[in-house]
Amino acid sequence: MKKQFAIIGLSSFTKRILEQIETEECEIILIDKDPETIDAYKDRVQRSYIADVLNEATIGQLIPPDIDAVIVDPGDRIEVSILVTNYLKKLGVKKIFVRAETEEHGEILSLIGAEHIVYPNKEAAQRLAPILMASHLISYMPLSNEMVLAEVKAPQSILGKKLIGSGIRDVLNLNVVAIRGEKTGQEYSFISPDYIFSENDTLLLAGNEKNLMAFSDKTIVKKKSAISRFLKGVLP
Amino acid sequence: MKKQFAIIGLSSFTKRILEQIETEECEIILIDKDPETIDAYKDRVQRSYIADVLNEATIGQLIPPDIDAVIVDPGDRIEVSILVTNYLKKLGVKKIFVRAETEEHGEILSLIGAEHIVYPNKEAAQRLAPILMASHLISYMPLSNEMVLAEVKAPQSILGKKLIGSGIRDVLNLNVVAIRGEKTGQEYSFISPDYIFSENDTLLLAGNEKNLMAFSDKTIVKKKSAISRFLKGVLP
Repeated sequence: MKKQFAIIGLSSFTKRILEQIETEECEIILIDKDPETIDAYKDRVQRSYIADVLNEATIGQLIPPDIDAVIVDPGDRIEVSILVTNYLKKLGVKKIFVRAETEEHGEILSLIGAEHIVYPNKEAAQRLAPILMASHLISYMPLSNEMVLAEVKAPQSILGKKLIGSGIRDVLNLNVVAIRGEKTGQEYSFISPDYIFSENDTLLLAGNEKNLMAFSDKTIVKKKSAISRFLKGVLP
Repeated sequence: MKKQFAIIGLSSFTKRILEQIETEECEIILIDKDPETIDAYKDRVQRSYIADVLNEATIGQLIPPDIDAVIVDPGDRIEVSILVTNYLKKLGVKKIFVRAETEEHGEILSLIGAEHIVYPNKEAAQRLAPILMASHLISYMPLSNEMVLAEVKAPQSILGKKLIGSGIRDVLNLNVVAIRGEKTGQEYSFISPDYIFSENDTLLLAGNEKNLMAFSDKTIVKKKSAISRFLKGVLP
C-alpha cells in the first residue's frame, strides 16, 4: 500500500522534504495558505489545498486520521505550528514531525505530543562547531551523551601502521566504521584489521567524544557534552 | 594558542554556532549591521562591531587574514554572502563556512572558493525523508554515494539471535557500529559477536543503502541514491 503524507506549510524545510519524497511511491497532500505557492507546487503532489490551517475543522476535513505522517512548518509564527500540532494530535495522527527554531518552541511542541521535533539550524551548528575546534576533524555527529561519530583525516602518527596495531581500537576504544582514500576509490569501504593507513585516508570513527577529539588533535577539550543527543528519537 | 573565529551576520544558524563555541577557549569576533543585535551579544564575544560587511575595506580592517575560520550568514540576500565570501577569499582567509539555502547559491559560493557550504534545511530533510518511508528506521544519515548510517529498531526476525548468526554482517554486509537497549542502559555501546538481540534494542548500522533499507523493512525502494553525499567535505 502506498504511504500517505501531508505537508502543512511549504517552507524552505518542507520544500526539501517534498523534493526528497516526491519520487518515492507515496501520496502527498499539500496544504498552504498562499494561493501562489499551491499553484506552483500543485502538479508535484497528489492533492493540494489553499487553506487556513488555524481552523480545526479544516484540518479535520483535509487530513485522514490514519495518515502515515504529517510534516508541519507553517512559517515564522510559532503559535501556528503549536496549534496545528495540537489539532493533528486530537485528530489521532500518529506521526507528527514539526520544525522548531528554539528550544522553547520545541519544548511546547513536545508537551502537546509532537513525536519528532526537527531543529535544522541547531543540528547543523552542532556538527560544525567541533570541526572549528579540531584540525583533523572533517565532520562530526553526536550519537548519544557519550558517543559520537566523526570523519577524521588520518593523523601522521598512524600512517604506515596496520589498523590492528594502531591502538585506535584497543587503546582509544574507537570503532573504525569505514575508510575512504585512494585504496578504496574515495568511497567508504569496510576494512580488515590488516588494513595499512595511507596519507589522505579519511576514517569514519565511532566512540567516546573525548577519545575521538584527542585522536583528532583537538587543542582544547573543555566543554562537557553540552552537545546534546543528536539521534534520540529521530532528530534531537 | 587560542583559536580565533569570526561570525559575519548573526542569524538563526550562526547564533547556534555561537552557543556551541562560546564556552570553548577561543576568541570570537562578531560583525553585524544591526546595532541592537550587537548590543545584545557583545558581552558573549571578545570583539564585536556594527559594520556594513558589503564594504571590502571594512572586512579587511576587522578580519585578521590568519584567522582560524570565518562563518558567514549575513541574512536573506544571497548577494551579500557571495560578496563577503569573495572579500574573505581575497584577504587570504583559509577556512570559510557559509550557509546556503539553495543549490544555486551553494554552487556560486563554491565557485568563488568557499571551502565549506552548509545547508541546514536540506540536511535535515535528507535525514528525515527515509524515516518517513521505512517503519523500523529511527534515524538516517547518508555517508557517501552508497553507504549510509542509520538507527534501526531491531526487527522481529533477529530477536533472540546472536549478532554472529544473524546474517546482518555476512549476508547483508552491514556493520553494527553500536547498540542501545535495556542491556546497555539505553546508551550506545559496542557489542561482541555473541551479543543476543532483545526487543526494543536499537542498532546503529553502517552499510549499503539498499541492504539497510531492506533490513529496516522499507516497503518501496525506488529512488536511487538521489540522496546526495552528506559527509563530503564537512557538510554537503
